[in-house]
Amino acid sequence: MSTEKVEIFDTTLRDGEQVPGCKLNTAQKLKIAARLDELGVDVIEAGFPVSSPGDFQSVLEISKLVKNAAVCGLTRAVKKDIEVAAQALRYAKKPRIHTGIGTSDSHIKYKFKSTREEIIERAREAVAYAKTFVDDVEFYAEDAGRTENEFLAKVCTAAVEAGATVLNIPDTTGYCLPEEYGKKIKYLKENVKGIENVRISCHCHNDLGMATANAIAGISNGARQIECTINGIGERAGNTALEEVVMILRQHPTLNLTTDINPKFLYDTSCMVSREMGMFVQPNKAIVGANAFAHSSGIHQDGVIKNRETYEIIDPADVGVTESAIVLTARSGRAALAYRAKKMGYELTKLQLDCVYNEFLNYADCRKEVVDNDIHEIMKLSRKNMAIA
Amino acid sequence: MSTEKVEIFDTTLRDGEQVPGCKLNTAQKLKIAARLDELGVDVIEAGFPVSSPGDFQSVLEISKLVKNAAVCGLTRAVKKDIEVAAQALRYAKKPRIHTGIGTSDSHIKYKFKSTREEIIERAREAVAYAKTFVDDVEFYAEDAGRTENEFLAKVCTAAVEAGATVLNIPDTTGYCLPEEYGKKIKYLKENVKGIENVRISCHCHNDLGMATANAIAGISNGARQIECTINGIGERAGNTALEEVVMILRQHPTLNLTTDINPKFLYDTSCMVSREMGMFVQPNKAIVGANAFAHSSGIHQDGVIKNRETYEIIDPADVGVTESAIVLTARSGRAALAYRAKKMGYELTKLQLDCVYNEFLNYADCRKEVVDNDIHEIMKLSRKNMAIA
Repeated sequence: MSTEKVEIFDTTLRDGEQVPGCKLNTAQKLKIAARLDELGVDVIEAGFPVSSPGDFQSVLEISKLVKNAAVCGLTRAVKKDIEVAAQALRYAKKPRIHTGIGTSDSHIKYKFKSTREEIIERAREAVAYAKTFVDDVEFYAEDAGRTENEFLAKVCTAAVEAGATVLNIPDTTGYCLPEEYGKKIKYLKENVKGIENVRISCHCHNDLGMATANAIAGISNGARQIECTINGIGERAGNTALEEVVMILRQHPTLNLTTDINPKFLYDTSCMVSREMGMFVQPNKAIVGANAFAHSSGIHQDGVIKNRETYEIIDPADVGVTESAIVLTARSGRAALAYRAKKMGYELTKLQLDCVYNEFLNYADCRKEVVDNDIHEIMKLSRKNMAIA
Repeated sequence: MSTEKVEIFDTTLRDGEQVPGCKLNTAQKLKIAARLDELGVDVIEAGFPVSSPGDFQSVLEISKLVKNAAVCGLTRAVKKDIEVAAQALRYAKKPRIHTGIGTSDSHIKYKFKSTREEIIERAREAVAYAKTFVDDVEFYAEDAGRTENEFLAKVCTAAVEAGATVLNIPDTTGYCLPEEYGKKIKYLKENVKGIENVRISCHCHNDLGMATANAIAGISNGARQIECTINGIGERAGNTALEEVVMILRQHPTLNLTTDINPKFLYDTSCMVSREMGMFVQPNKAIVGANAFAHSSGIHQDGVIKNRETYEIIDPADVGVTESAIVLTARSGRAALAYRAKKMGYELTKLQLDCVYNEFLNYADCRKEVVDNDIHEIMKLSRKNMAIA
């Protein structure tokens, strides 16, 4: 089976930027857009142009700047939204309009006070209208995760007939489990007329911690685009994390799927987005967290020192992290202590190590971490009991 | 189908506490253990007693304190580890010894410089030795995620024969995808002799962002215990997050699985662990992040104001969060602005709202968030153009 490409649709500047506290000015957005283009994303969702004058201006400037990726603007299924988005995208080399409407019963009843038939018509009209401005039109069926599959296929068929090039199937509320979301994509592959000519996209939210797992289930069942953000930021609990998707496909070659992302830029991009948005990344974040490659327990440190692959599936250098950190704490073992001590110039015999290790444990039990200065101190304390060169 | 219980094995104080920067003193550990007991966890892994005198003391004190949960101590397949753990657990109402050994080829070759036959013997001996101290012995097959299933079943069979009551199948390196991990559990259910008398446990790591998804795949295939931590902390990218597992089972009743956790304590427990460890939770963390129930985009805010369930699958009050926050930013729409303004005493007509909204957008475009004081300012600015009561 030959390897197929999954397109990466980055929505850091739209779903990510709309988050409380994440607002960026145009200069910041341009800086991040340039980096995303370098990173190798296929599509940059640059904003929601009708939402504010500032957002319009940003989409306009990003469109001028970006060299390789398509630039996409979000709209509702509303004529004015689509016209404004087309204006904002007018300098883009590859402009894409993203339009759509809620399709779940909850959205139809409470948000639109409408009917299923009317929703299909509005979807068709929005896509057709967007097509009068650009060739590349992506349709989203909002809350598709909670939309009955049979009706969802009907809405999607209408969007494809109207000219949609991409069908986005969002799990808007982050409700789905992977098996369920995968089955939904499979159902659409089998039941939407003309599906062979369009790309299915996964847009998953993380309310139950399933955003990445659902996106992977989606592409395993035929989707070929993932909507994601750097650091998994986004509305509420966030979106699928770009860095996780990219590394899963690299670590699991049997999936026969790949992306055009250069993983060497992942860590730096994560830091840039976190810094510009003031949106911190927790230390235990996969791939890009401060502790993602840190080993602290004695059992683990001993294993990693013997052979990195014992506890590490990813070489940190692959994602732009320079070295896996061996952090010394009260849970660290003799091997880690000896390793660090050696790096600092202390060569210890087995007997000396035993003595220093006892001192180390007493010392470490009262501290969060033992740093290099502490090691010198421990050596001094140990010298009282033995002779170390 | 009747609902079955999944036991929650909390390892916040062991796999979580061993993380760089997360070290706690005994008083802090006791505080957290008491809260975990209240929360309703079935097992508290309290530490790794042989690793340091401080850890031994903590396990001893926690054993005295805990009223309902079993208290568990970690060991390697080493006699001294097991003896020390038994000592530390001697006051526990329900003591459990957790012992085991690496079973993947990588661990056998590089970490133990051993053979498969020898590993099976060491597993058998460790469990049998632990059984001389306590009835409840959990066996872990370290790096089971990368262990060939046929050999894994042999090791597990030996552990069951030696008296293990729980079989822990750790994806130590966080390598597995949910389908693969689920199949592994299914294989063991079908191929380990005596499996009907023991409980299979999932211990998953988050290196690829799959810890929660893998645990759910595990219990969907017959496992009945999940090892997890508050906030998903743990070695490297962390473990399965307790709060995610609990809420997934509640939100998906068709899985026919439940836990004894009281979800009302989830948010408070998350805050306590984060505070005591100095280990922050990122705003976009599922269930317990600061933004988990915050809506900022206009489309979403409008929907939530019309009907909470449009964009929210979990009622924040269910997990102890008092109100879903509607945060005002430049991405917010008229509905959110009117909602907040009304709460502050400004009743606006449609025409007034249009005018105030324009002022709001200009104002919000230069700010990360619009807070109540800003609203008063915007109202003042708007008054120049119209009459508001």
